[in-house]
Parts: sequence; structure tokens; C-alpha cells
Amino acid sequence: MEPGIATRMQYISPFYVMELLQLAKQLERQGRDVIHMEIGEPDFPTPKGVLEAGRQCLHDGQIKYTAATGLQPLREAIGQYYFDRYRIQVAVERIFITPGATGAFLLALGSSLNPGEEIIMADPCYPCNNNFVRLFGGTTQYVKATAETNFQLNAELIRHHWNEHSKGVVVASPSNPTGTLISPDDLKQSVEQTLALKGCFYSDEIYHGLVYKDKAVSALQFSDKAFVINSFSKFFGMTGWRVGWLVVPEAFIDPVEKLAQNIFISTPTQSQYAALACFSRENLEELDRRAAVFAERKDYLYKRLIELGFEVEAEPQGAFYIYANCSRYTDDTFKFAKDLLLAEAVAVTPGKDFGHNRENLYIRFAYTASVDRMSAALDRLEQFLCQYPK
Amino acid sequence: MEPGIATRMQYISPFYVMELLQLAKQLERQGRDVIHMEIGEPDFPTPKGVLEAGRQCLHDGQIKYTAATGLQPLREAIGQYYFDRYRIQVAVERIFITPGATGAFLLALGSSLNPGEEIIMADPCYPCNNNFVRLFGGTTQYVKATAETNFQLNAELIRHHWNEHSKGVVVASPSNPTGTLISPDDLKQSVEQTLALKGCFYSDEIYHGLVYKDKAVSALQFSDKAFVINSFSKFFGMTGWRVGWLVVPEAFIDPVEKLAQNIFISTPTQSQYAALACFSRENLEELDRRAAVFAERKDYLYKRLIELGFEVEAEPQGAFYIYANCSRYTDDTFKFAKDLLLAEAVAVTPGKDFGHNRENLYIRFAYTASVDRMSAALDRLEQFLCQYPK
Repeated sequence: MEPGIATRMQYISPFYVMELLQLAKQLERQGRDVIHMEIGEPDFPTPKGVLEAGRQCLHDGQIKYTAATGLQPLREAIGQYYFDRYRIQVAVERIFITPGATGAFLLALGSSLNPGEEIIMADPCYPCNNNFVRLFGGTTQYVKATAETNFQLNAELIRHHWNEHSKGVVVASPSNPTGTLISPDDLKQSVEQTLALKGCFYSDEIYHGLVYKDKAVSALQFSDKAFVINSFSKFFGMTGWRVGWLVVPEAFIDPVEKLAQNIFISTPTQSQYAALACFSRENLEELDRRAAVFAERKDYLYKRLIELGFEVEAEPQGAFYIYANCSRYTDDTFKFAKDLLLAEAVAVTPGKDFGHNRENLYIRFAYTASVDRMSAALDRLEQFLCQYPK
Repeated sequence: MEPGIATRMQYISPFYVMELLQLAKQLERQGRDVIHMEIGEPDFPTPKGVLEAGRQCLHDGQIKYTAATGLQPLREAIGQYYFDRYRIQVAVERIFITPGATGAFLLALGSSLNPGEEIIMADPCYPCNNNFVRLFGGTTQYVKATAETNFQLNAELIRHHWNEHSKGVVVASPSNPTGTLISPDDLKQSVEQTLALKGCFYSDEIYHGLVYKDKAVSALQFSDKAFVINSFSKFFGMTGWRVGWLVVPEAFIDPVEKLAQNIFISTPTQSQYAALACFSRENLEELDRRAAVFAERKDYLYKRLIELGFEVEAEPQGAFYIYANCSRYTDDTFKFAKDLLLAEAVAVTPGKDFGHNRENLYIRFAYTASVDRMSAALDRLEQFLCQYPK
């Protein structure tokens, strides 16, 4: 490594899909019509009412810093949302507005994780989780997850892997990349097990709202000692605005406020005002309609992938991803994804971006494109498979 | 400390002025007219053209993630700005758009500083600097700065304080809280000295543009191996938008991109589009008019503070702060600030927020209020001084 670069940078992985994205852009410059199924971002625009609230905020030009904790009415609206959707009371003081879920993770881990401590998480999982842990000098203990547990952790796995270095547990439900949920019982027991071990429980709930059959439960339903990370990006359709939230245990209110003051000053003001409009009845209805569209897309994509000979070991229940086992066609999905992009201009994300659990066999398909676009992509994929491997 | 909280949180200080701000809000709720001279935020609204660009961006609702490096045209505009204002060429690849200068500091220190390494900085200085260092397990070596060096470091001080743990040097010019500049010679020699010691040089240039007599020079004029932190918040008047930038040495391009992908995903999209409008000739002219207003305010405030018996050891040359020695009246400026607020509803920031260099003797006055408001504040202060200490 170049002298001067911090040692931690060795352990922080890039997004491997970026290499494919560069390639996709090259193809697009050459005039090719690339179908994007690699992107973890809803294709829907920000809803009208939210946009309008953003524009309104820009009207008088007083776009000043807010408190580091966030706009008070937005914190209150989130508290109310927990009551309305989950029937739980969450004290407003425990709710911090953050620059996206990434900001929430920075605060949660920055205020709790010591160098040398270990965080337990399922493999596969979202790659940034380990990178946040590494940023603060911790290490990740990956627990190979299978369809048997719906690609999630449970209390037994946590107990089994807990050791003297363990600090806490990250659970994401619905999961990225598998779209699978942890069951309410497993979540309850996982939270309780982790707290009994005097660990921190970090619950990534950024895909809540995008759940298609069952209902996602929040860790806050089982304990007020969990950290909960959430975001306006996915269900609420506000990716580029960079606004999310973090719920912390009471003991962490002061440290997290201090950290937020220093590392963010505040979350973008106009994004916070816009987010306030997320909770109107009209907007929530619109978001539920969008969720229904995602559910249809999931059914369509799932069916076609199975027909094409991919194996989906646990049927996804939420988010907008299907994590497909491609072992019938390849044991090098990074190469497969690159070949598919070059041959047929369909972009997908190789398993390499999600851990070390037979990642060479998997591809993540995002259904963030319309059924029509996906239909075209799957026709191209079918064409590609006829000749693969060359 | 509460179990579970990371040890680093012991070393991360809160903003002490927050206690005063809370008190100020209480007074305001009681109907008192508080004059705010504690705030490091321009009172001017975001300029019209920038607001309009922001509104335009919100028009179609496609507020999606940008690349982690930032919007390409914005990076190019900043490159052009370096050429126009400083007559230097900065490769666009070295320019990263960040969520404010805080985001720039996170990337610069996160990618370079190892636990146990030490950063040299002047005392007094901006309190977050040390807190960023602590976040990554480093330590700060404060160098007591005096009026003799304009409250800045120089090559000799750097050489004298460098030791086997030293990793780099932070210089902020104009400085917060003193508003003083480092001379072009001292900056040149400081950069060269630090690089000769194989250290990293971090130049905080967020108050460039707000310089009233001399001209601020950039570390980039002397080396392309410096890190430069800048922001659209202060001179450009975009605090609440959270957008700034970081220039990195070439060797850091890949690590910093990787880190940005993980810890931010991207900088707020609408803020980046709005920032693009900062560089129009009309807007830059408007900003220079505002800078002239700040210069008048500085002259006014400086004169009145001297008349009231405060000592300003080095006349400020930029930013919007005067760091006044109050030893004629008190050796406990935190108490003084609190008493002043309670008695006369004038809010200022005590030296305690800026380090450990006779901080009990100083108060930072921000001239982010109009001359009329400041005039009223100074009348109240005069009144207060007649009876102080009680």
C-alpha cells in the first residue's frame, strides 16, 4: 500500500459492482441500451407531496443548519409513525435524524464499537456493514447463513458464535441481498440473547414498508435497548436526498448527540423538511401502491428466474432483490455478470459484493425496473444462457 | 461511563456553547429578544440563483444517488474555480464532493490516520478537528499559538513538535476562532516541512473568500500532495445544504473513493445541483458584495470591542469571528458568557470550545448579525460590564 494510507483501508472493500457500472456506462456511450438490474435504488421518482415540501422549503432561502439531532417535528413524526405502524411508543429523544442510513450506522457504531471488538452478522449481507466496523477498528465475524434460517441469524447462532471479543450483532430484515425476513420469534430471541450477553443489537430496518406478504417487525417491539437504523431512501423513495434516522438506547442519547454534532453538524435541511411530508395519508397510500408494484415485479422476476434454471433458495419477502444461485451455469458469477453485460447489455450484481459464503455462485437481481424492462432483460438473459459458457 | 459506550467517546468533546444555546432558546420562549453572536453561520440567505437551481432540480423528482465522487460537472467547476481564483491546475480526479467540510475531514482522516498516530494543530482551533482525530483512534498534539505567529503554526513549530508518533498537521486559514491568516511564506514552508517529514498536510480552507485585506492562499499552490478541505457553507452561503469538497493527493484517490462509497453513498443530489450555480459571474459578484459587508461588520465590531476594553491580540483578517481576550473583566469566560446571556440576552461562545490555551480568558464574537443588531448587542454588553463582576 502507498505510504501514508491508513492500514484500515486494506480491510475496507470497494463495491465490486462499480467495475461493471463503469463498463455499463461505456456501453451506453457507445449507444447500447443497457437494462439496469444491479441498482439498489427505486426507479420511482420522489413522491409529489414530498417534492413540493422540498420546493416550499427552498422558497425563502433560509436553508440554515438544524440541530444535530434533527428537526424536532420530523423526530416527532417518526415517533408517531412507530405508534401508527407498530403500536409502540418511542421517546422522541431517542430518535436522531441522520444523513441516510449510512449516517445512522456511523453514529451507532462510532459511539459503541471499540477497536478489537467484533460484530456478528449473517453472510451474505450488505457490504458496507463490515466496512463501518473496520472504519472504527473492529472486526466482523461472518456467520454463514443458509435458506434453512431464511439467510438470517437466530439466537442459537448468536450464542454459538459469541466470544470474548464480541460487541454486538447486526440483523437486517428484509435482508439485502436476499430479501428475506427474520421471523418475529427469531428477532425477539436474537435481541434478548444479545442483550443477555451484554451486547449491542443493531437492527437495520431500511427496507421496512417494502414487505410483500408477511409483516416486518421492528426490534423496538421487543426492547428499547436496541439500535434501529432506518431511512427515507427506499420505501419513502428519497435516495438522493440523504435522510434517514437512528433510534438509540437511552444511555446513548448524549454520546450520539455529541458525535452527530461533530461528524455531520446537521442533516440537509431541505431534505428534512421534505421528509416531513412523507407521513401524510395521501403519501403513505401512494407508497403502499408502489409497494404493491414491487410485489408484482417480484412475483414476475421470481417465476422467470426459476423457469430459466436459477435456484432461489429462500423466496424473498421484501426489499427489491432476488439472490439467485447460478450454479447450474457458472461458479464464477463475477465473470458471468461481466460476460452478460458485454454480450446482452444487462447489468446485475455479482455475489462477491455480499460476502464470502459461496458468493461465487450467486447473483443479485434488483427489481428496480418495470416489468416491461425486466421482461426484455430476461429475454436477453435467456438468449445469453443458450450460449453460456461459450 | 455507561457500559457499552465506546471508549473514544470520553475523548470527544461536546460543543460547550450548546448549553448556552439551550438557555438562549429558553429565554426566547419567555419572550426575550436574544441577539446571537455565537453562531458560525452567515445570516444571509442562500443566493437567489443557487436557490433557483435547487428548485429546478426538484422539478422532475429524479433525485437519485450520484456517484460517490460527486457530480462530474461540479467537480469540473471546482477545478475551474481553482484556476480562475488561484491560477492553479487541479486534476478533477483529485476533487471529491462531500457532505460539507465535516464529510471532507472524515474522508481525509479516515483514509490516512492510524490509531495511535498524532496530529499537530494550533491551539486555539476548531473543536471538531480533535474530535475527528479521536474518532479514528489518533491523538492531537496541541501547539499553543500566540499573536506572535498570528495564532497559526509555522515550519519551525512543526519541526519542533514533530515526533515518532506524528502523522500530520492541520492548518486552518482563516482560522476559527481567531479569523487570522497564515502568511503565504509560512504556509509554503509548513507544507514543505510536513511533506519532508513524510507527514500529511491537511489545509482547512473553508473560510476562503471571506478574507478582507490580504488574500488567502491555498496549500495547493505549493504542493499537489496536500489535502484541502473546503465547503459551500460559509463564503457560498449554503450551510444547511451540506455540501463541500476535498482535494486529495493522487495516491489517495482510490482509497478515498472507496471510503466515500461506504460512509456517504453520495452527497445530497439537489445540493450538488444547486452548488453548480455558485460559480456564475452574477453569483460570485453577489458573494463578493456580501464579503464586503462582513468586512464592514468586522471593522465595526473590532473598534467597539477595543473601546469596551477587550484585547484583540491579532487583528482578524477573515472568516466572521473576533477572538477577544476578556482578562480585564474575568478569568472564567464560560461563566461570563452565561451571565451575559441571562442578564442582557446576548449570546457569545466561550473560549472553552476552542482548546486549552488560556481558553478561560477568551470569548469568540461572531459577526454573523447586522451592524444594527451588533450595535444593540454591544450597548447591552457595555451595560453589563458596568456591573461585572457583581
